[in-house]
Amino acid sequence: MEEVQGTGRKDAAPCLEEMLPDSLRHSFVASLANGCLYVGSRRDLPFCRHSVCCHDGFEAAAAIRDMVTQGGGQLETALLAIVLEARLHGRDFQHLERVRTALCQARRTNTTVARELDMLFPQLYATDEHDDFPLRAEELVMRRLRYYDSLYLELGRRGAALIPDGCGVLTTCFPEHSFFLSLAFARQQGRRFTVYAMETRPYLQGAHLTAPALAELGYDHCLITDNMAAGLIAAGKIGVYMTASDLATPQRWVVNKIGTLSSALCCRMYNVPYYAFSVGLDSRYGSLEDFKVEYRDPEEVKSCQGLATSTARVRALYPAFDIIPPDFVSGIVTAEGII
Amino acid sequence: MEEVQGTGRKDAAPCLEEMLPDSLRHSFVASLANGCLYVGSRRDLPFCRHSVCCHDGFEAAAAIRDMVTQGGGQLETALLAIVLEARLHGRDFQHLERVRTALCQARRTNTTVARELDMLFPQLYATDEHDDFPLRAEELVMRRLRYYDSLYLELGRRGAALIPDGCGVLTTCFPEHSFFLSLAFARQQGRRFTVYAMETRPYLQGAHLTAPALAELGYDHCLITDNMAAGLIAAGKIGVYMTASDLATPQRWVVNKIGTLSSALCCRMYNVPYYAFSVGLDSRYGSLEDFKVEYRDPEEVKSCQGLATSTARVRALYPAFDIIPPDFVSGIVTAEGII
Repeated sequence: MEEVQGTGRKDAAPCLEEMLPDSLRHSFVASLANGCLYVGSRRDLPFCRHSVCCHDGFEAAAAIRDMVTQGGGQLETALLAIVLEARLHGRDFQHLERVRTALCQARRTNTTVARELDMLFPQLYATDEHDDFPLRAEELVMRRLRYYDSLYLELGRRGAALIPDGCGVLTTCFPEHSFFLSLAFARQQGRRFTVYAMETRPYLQGAHLTAPALAELGYDHCLITDNMAAGLIAAGKIGVYMTASDLATPQRWVVNKIGTLSSALCCRMYNVPYYAFSVGLDSRYGSLEDFKVEYRDPEEVKSCQGLATSTARVRALYPAFDIIPPDFVSGIVTAEGII
Repeated sequence: MEEVQGTGRKDAAPCLEEMLPDSLRHSFVASLANGCLYVGSRRDLPFCRHSVCCHDGFEAAAAIRDMVTQGGGQLETALLAIVLEARLHGRDFQHLERVRTALCQARRTNTTVARELDMLFPQLYATDEHDDFPLRAEELVMRRLRYYDSLYLELGRRGAALIPDGCGVLTTCFPEHSFFLSLAFARQQGRRFTVYAMETRPYLQGAHLTAPALAELGYDHCLITDNMAAGLIAAGKIGVYMTASDLATPQRWVVNKIGTLSSALCCRMYNVPYYAFSVGLDSRYGSLEDFKVEYRDPEEVKSCQGLATSTARVRALYPAFDIIPPDFVSGIVTAEGII
C-alpha cells in the first residue's frame, strides 16, 4: 500500500518536475524524513543549497515567519507540518489547533494556508478513532498536494496562452510554479521570449531565485534592478507582465510583493497586460483599498545581503506588499479561467 | 590679491555651505592642493570619507568615468582639471584640447561639462600671451564656480516654493545642490515635510548619499527601496517628486537616473507633480524619443556593494538612465523659471 501511495504522489511529478527548477521541486521545498520536516531554505539560494530542519509545527511556523520559504513553499510546509504533528501527538486536537494557529499567523498576507487548513481540519476531526491517525492525516495532506500539482499545471497551461511569440515577459519576485509552467508550455508550443526578472529588493528573490532558475532551465533571460522595468516597458520590450499573488479577490484586487504596483501602473500606461496567478481567490475580501499591508523590519531596507547600505541614524520603511487595484490588473489566472 | 580672490569665492559660501551636506561642500567635492586635484569619492560614502588624487586632467576624466563623482561634482572636477593643466602645461592648447575631449567623453549623458568647456575655451584662447596663464585660467574657472553657487541658490529658492507644507517629498538618486537648497529654504519658511529617498540600485546613491545627507542636516526622512515609491504615491503620502537631471531640453524632455521614469509615471497616474532641476537646458536636442541611453557594465546589476547577488551564468542589463517624456514632467526648474 505504501508504495502505491508513493507512486500516487509521483503521478503528476515526472511531467511537472522536469518543467520546474530545483528550487520548486518537492524534494527541496519541504519533505518529511528522520522524524523531521526539512524546509528548503530560499534565503541562502543560490549560493548555498540547504534545508532547515523543523522538529515540530511551531518550528515550521517560525521557518515561514523568518522567510525560509514563501508562497507555495509556505503551503507545502504548513501541510506537512500537520502530518509531522499527527505523527508526534496523534489525535490531540487541542495541540493541533495551536499548531494551526501558529502556522496561519506566521505570515498574515497570504491566506492560502489558512483556507487550506480550514478545509483540512474538519476532515481530520472526522477521522475514525480506530484509524491510523498519522497515516490518515498523511493521505489527506498528500491528496491536497497532488491537487496543487495538477492546479499548477492547469494554471501553467492557461498562462502559456497569454505569452505572445517573440516578446519580453516581465516578472517580479519569485513567481513560482504557475509562472515556470507557463514558460515551459509556451516553449513546448514553439514560442520564443525573453524573461526580464526584477531583482526584488530588499530580499532579492528575483536575483537569488528567479534569474538562476531561468538560467538553470535554459530560458533566454535578463536580470534587472527593480527601477529598470519602466524603461523596458516604455521602450516596447515587454509583451506581458506576470506575477504570482499573495492574495487575490474575486473583484480582481491583487496583493503581491512590493514593486508589483509600480510595474502594473507602467504596464497600464503603455497598454501591456498584467496577469497575476492565483491558486485560490479569497472571497472573504471585497475591496482591498483599506487593506493593511504587512510591514517588516526596516533594517532590511538599510542593508543588502547582510551588508549595511546606509548609516545607523538613517530611518527606513519596509512595506512588504503592494496592493494592486482592479484597474491595473488585466486578469487573474485561476483554475476556473481568467477573471 | 590672493586673499581677495579667496574671499571672492567664499562670498556665496557661508550661506550655501551651511545648507548643504558635507558631501556637496566645495572642500569635499573637488579642490586643488599640493599640485593635484583632489576629488571627493562618492563611491565610498558614507562608510569612508576620502578623496581620489588626480595628477592631471586625464586622471580627472578617469575619475569621472569611474563614477568617483557625478553631476555637479563632475562639473567642478572638470573645471578645476583645466586649472591644474594650465598650471602643468601653460598655453599648450593642443594638450588642453586633448584634456577637454577626455573630460567631455568621460560620461556622455550629462552635457553640462561639454557646454561649460565650450564657453571656457574661447576665453582661454583669448587670454593675453603676457598674462599669467594659470592665474587667468583659475580666475575664469572660479568665476564660473561662483556662478553655479548662485545658480544653485536660485534653483533652491524656486524649488522651495514647490514643496507644500506637511507633505512627502520623493526623490531618486542624489539630487544634489538644488534639491538640498530647496529643502533648506522650505524649512526656513516654516514648512514641514518628510523626504522619501529611493535607494537607487545598482549604485545605491540614495542609500549612500541622499539618506545620510538628510540625516546629517536633520530632515525628517525615510529610506526606501526603489520598488516602494509607487505604493507611497498611491497611498497619498507623496506631495511632490523632485530629482536632478543629467540632461534636460527646452521641450521638457528629461534624462535622469534609471528609476526616474517609473516614479514619474506613478506620479502622473496619481496627480502628483514631478519637477526636475536643470543647471542649463541643452537646446541642441529636440525630442529625446530616440536618445541612446548610456549602458554600463551589467555585472553591477549582478552584485551589490561588491557581493554577488546572483549566479555567474545569469545574464543582466544595466541601462544607466531613464528618458522621461514631457507628458510626465510637470516642470523643469531652471534659473529663468519653471518650464
